[in-house]
Amino acid sequence: MGRTNGTPDGGRNVREGSVDLFDTVAAFRAALDAERAAGRTVGLVPTMGALHDGHLSLVRRAASDCDVVAATIFVNPLQFGPTEDLATYPRDLAADAALGEGAGVAHLLAPAVDEMFPSPPLTTVHVAELTEGGEGASRPGHFDGVATIVAKLFAVAGPCRAYFGEKDWQQLQVVRRLAADLSFPVEVVACPTVREADGLALSSRNRHLSAAERGAAPVLHRALLAGRALVAGGCSDRDELRRAMAGVVAAEPLARLDYAEVGDGGPGALRLLVAARIGATRLIDNLEAPLP
Amino acid sequence: MGRTNGTPDGGRNVREGSVDLFDTVAAFRAALDAERAAGRTVGLVPTMGALHDGHLSLVRRAASDCDVVAATIFVNPLQFGPTEDLATYPRDLAADAALGEGAGVAHLLAPAVDEMFPSPPLTTVHVAELTEGGEGASRPGHFDGVATIVAKLFAVAGPCRAYFGEKDWQQLQVVRRLAADLSFPVEVVACPTVREADGLALSSRNRHLSAAERGAAPVLHRALLAGRALVAGGCSDRDELRRAMAGVVAAEPLARLDYAEVGDGGPGALRLLVAARIGATRLIDNLEAPLP
Repeated sequence: MGRTNGTPDGGRNVREGSVDLFDTVAAFRAALDAERAAGRTVGLVPTMGALHDGHLSLVRRAASDCDVVAATIFVNPLQFGPTEDLATYPRDLAADAALGEGAGVAHLLAPAVDEMFPSPPLTTVHVAELTEGGEGASRPGHFDGVATIVAKLFAVAGPCRAYFGEKDWQQLQVVRRLAADLSFPVEVVACPTVREADGLALSSRNRHLSAAERGAAPVLHRALLAGRALVAGGCSDRDELRRAMAGVVAAEPLARLDYAEVGDGGPGALRLLVAARIGATRLIDNLEAPLP
Repeated sequence: MGRTNGTPDGGRNVREGSVDLFDTVAAFRAALDAERAAGRTVGLVPTMGALHDGHLSLVRRAASDCDVVAATIFVNPLQFGPTEDLATYPRDLAADAALGEGAGVAHLLAPAVDEMFPSPPLTTVHVAELTEGGEGASRPGHFDGVATIVAKLFAVAGPCRAYFGEKDWQQLQVVRRLAADLSFPVEVVACPTVREADGLALSSRNRHLSAAERGAAPVLHRALLAGRALVAGGCSDRDELRRAMAGVVAAEPLARLDYAEVGDGGPGALRLLVAARIGATRLIDNLEAPLP
């Protein structure tokens, strides 16, 4: 298997089983333009690779909603701080291509950094307000990096539905807002967090956990469940909810809390969010807490 | 003449002679999508209205390069500072539609502020470095407003060539850069400044000039010519060039210099730029100065 197609701009386009693998923006865009020209709707799943069942749930949802699924794999340097895990972020394109194909990806863009940024970009997309707390406070510049790369991927992909996981809740709000503010012809679709049996939210970073850390990691979900139980019992005091979630995390010796936050969760609900380090690995999670 | 078409989103689409006038983003986008689906290339001319021969030269160039010309008229509040002339910026949609049609505009988007920004946008597009001097220094926030609205118009218009005048030289560099950095499927085309017989660059703001001010306004162009003559004579000292241009402006009693700058003008040339107030009206101009 595997055939190589020359593309007009000289990009490589390798057909890997039934997934077309692109390393240039131009060839990927041309493929999606051709799908739309043939009357097919496009679902877009932007990722940083290291695909797991969470990503694949986005692909499956896109495949059920749209005629064809396009995915991108790009470990975006703009969204990593200088002390963060850009270098060690897991990368395995062959495995990702196989997993993506199995879930229904037809077109996969996996560009090198030089292809995405032939020169260091001078352009930054910033979303105000929504980026102030939570991850925005803990990871300065993170959401500018996210917003910039997502705007670029939307500009590359063209008219589509784009699928994002609720696991990155604040990112989801940022992406929705930039799509609306900049009038991208993109419908942002939110998909529920996928969890292990013990409640741990799937994350590419989970593979960094030692066995002991893996045992401790569900504490984030337990903290959220404790918060949700308080809300269900009538508590809507945000300080009290934060303290309760922080207390659950503090009881786990391998965990170090980054933040416990309470945000608006849409009509009739709060959104509970936590971030913590389990050993050297930083994990985040969130949960809707319906008001009684 | 004039017929009204219902559009899927409830927008108004008025056919004015041979120009289709849109007041919704969705209907304008649908029209351009239909043009491309029929195999026609689209030329885009974004404007703030108050069209003059400078704008119309962009439309004519677009009409000669592309199968169909789309223009936008939107006095973008994001690019005006709090003390600037947003309220008095000239607006005359009927005249603009007639002028645009005469030059070859087929689709004209003239949205209300509420259509472009149903809620105040939280998203800002910022281009670093290129926006630091000149207009960027004199008009804080101006280029963020320009970059944000141009990114939005590119997202609305879809694949096209987009035409911008060299009169707004720094804006042109900003627009080129954001289009490249964000991978918009847009080829930015620069068009030469159109001038009155006495050298005054056409600008929508010229109509604010009194007769005496109109007589004084060509001093910007004369300052640039003086700078260019010095460059042609072998001077490449940027301070000396700035002083020479400033001296020409200072000799005109109705003019008050904002800045005289010297930038890179591409291979083998400098770019000379001036901004000055003529009475209450702020004008800018620039000129290429080939190195001998």
